[in-house]
Amino acid sequence: MQALWFRAVKVEETAVEDKIIGRNPVLEAIRSGRNVEKILIKKGKYEGSIVPIIKKAKDAGIIIQETDKAKLDAAAEGGNHQGVVAYVSAYEYSTVKDILQRAKDNNEAPFIIICDKITDPHNLGAILRTANCVGAHGIIIPKRNSVGLNSTVAKTSAGAVEYTPVAKVTNIASVIDELKKEGLWIAAADMDGEEMYSVDLTGSIGLVIGSEGEGISRLVKEKCDFIASIPMSGKINSLNASVAAGVLMYEAMRQRR
Amino acid sequence: MQALWFRAVKVEETAVEDKIIGRNPVLEAIRSGRNVEKILIKKGKYEGSIVPIIKKAKDAGIIIQETDKAKLDAAAEGGNHQGVVAYVSAYEYSTVKDILQRAKDNNEAPFIIICDKITDPHNLGAILRTANCVGAHGIIIPKRNSVGLNSTVAKTSAGAVEYTPVAKVTNIASVIDELKKEGLWIAAADMDGEEMYSVDLTGSIGLVIGSEGEGISRLVKEKCDFIASIPMSGKINSLNASVAAGVLMYEAMRQRR
Repeated sequence: MQALWFRAVKVEETAVEDKIIGRNPVLEAIRSGRNVEKILIKKGKYEGSIVPIIKKAKDAGIIIQETDKAKLDAAAEGGNHQGVVAYVSAYEYSTVKDILQRAKDNNEAPFIIICDKITDPHNLGAILRTANCVGAHGIIIPKRNSVGLNSTVAKTSAGAVEYTPVAKVTNIASVIDELKKEGLWIAAADMDGEEMYSVDLTGSIGLVIGSEGEGISRLVKEKCDFIASIPMSGKINSLNASVAAGVLMYEAMRQRR
Repeated sequence: MQALWFRAVKVEETAVEDKIIGRNPVLEAIRSGRNVEKILIKKGKYEGSIVPIIKKAKDAGIIIQETDKAKLDAAAEGGNHQGVVAYVSAYEYSTVKDILQRAKDNNEAPFIIICDKITDPHNLGAILRTANCVGAHGIIIPKRNSVGLNSTVAKTSAGAVEYTPVAKVTNIASVIDELKKEGLWIAAADMDGEEMYSVDLTGSIGLVIGSEGEGISRLVKEKCDFIASIPMSGKINSLNASVAAGVLMYEAMRQRR
């Protein structure tokens, strides 16, 4: 169970910095290969030292968001942003290949959690924590419309970020296709499916968890082999995202033992 | 399933106010029988109009906390507190008797969640939400060292606060004794117990959930009939409190169906 855990390495031992503010610091962060999640740039005509920042960010496949001054001021929290703020992840990402390899190294059928657009860092942190507790081999999150491995996620994960690898991918739907080719069955956690107790969650499984507000996106849901539902017997018919993920992961664990 | 749901009635339909600031407003709140959780009073010699406030609060069994000016200023958020701030609950509390009656009215074996010192409102809100989803008859929380039904709890419960009654009691340990007399078995959710799958959670059950930091207090734990543990197979050996509560409540639900 220890093979690929070195993948989730803390970048800074003491302070966990999530933002880099100003042109030179941001350019240096991209140049040095730091894990930049996205860059906020002030809308307008781009000239001077902002041009190479945009070029290098594009080359590195970093998401660039144009925004107004007010949002940049808020993001910089009083710092002199010079029209640019970068969000960096506190932890290194893994890859889908490495997550699959980790299962192989342990002679276990892959058990992977796929988070479709979880935006609340407390939810992603709690899901990461639970994923570790049930012995999942890793988590896959999308590049866009998802919170990354920031310091709140790391803190809420209660240390799990050090042990359970997280891969960030451009397109969840096409990754599901790849996983299917690797022999995984993909289960969507959603309402109106089969009750989770009667769904077979043993063997090679990818479990897709949707966002709190919107659930799993249509395109991703269509790719799934089956839908597993949590039974509801009250007036409220939905759980908090991290609780729902926890209940399903534990049902999978119960079946897999 | 509708019998005692009227117990959780929203006090104010529009704004949910958690604090009352200043001598006259606080006195009025106590007099009118509003659900005052506790009162913060500035340390010192008590004279003038503060005296009847203290007397009436004591008569009503309200918790009184002496504190310094800085804490009162922060609690009042700039309001003129005159040495006193009251915390009121946004929702009405139920009673243990009513929760038991609710089970009886539905011809169901009581299924009650006992929260021992949950201080994070998001956790209590998520637990309340899950309790509704699994069809628990109610939640019991202690008067001291626990978050009450404030607006954050209500919001996080996603409406469950309207349907699942919450009783606030002075002493969890003595309430457990009462519940045992009513025929309930009390299960503590904790580590180092029997795995939850082999613990019988059918029949009349009270499930005790501890706080995130400290778990279940010793005195309460000693009163419990057995300890149900969630299996752990990762490097991290604990879950977020609301996830742990959710996993256990759903295991109980699975067994009870």
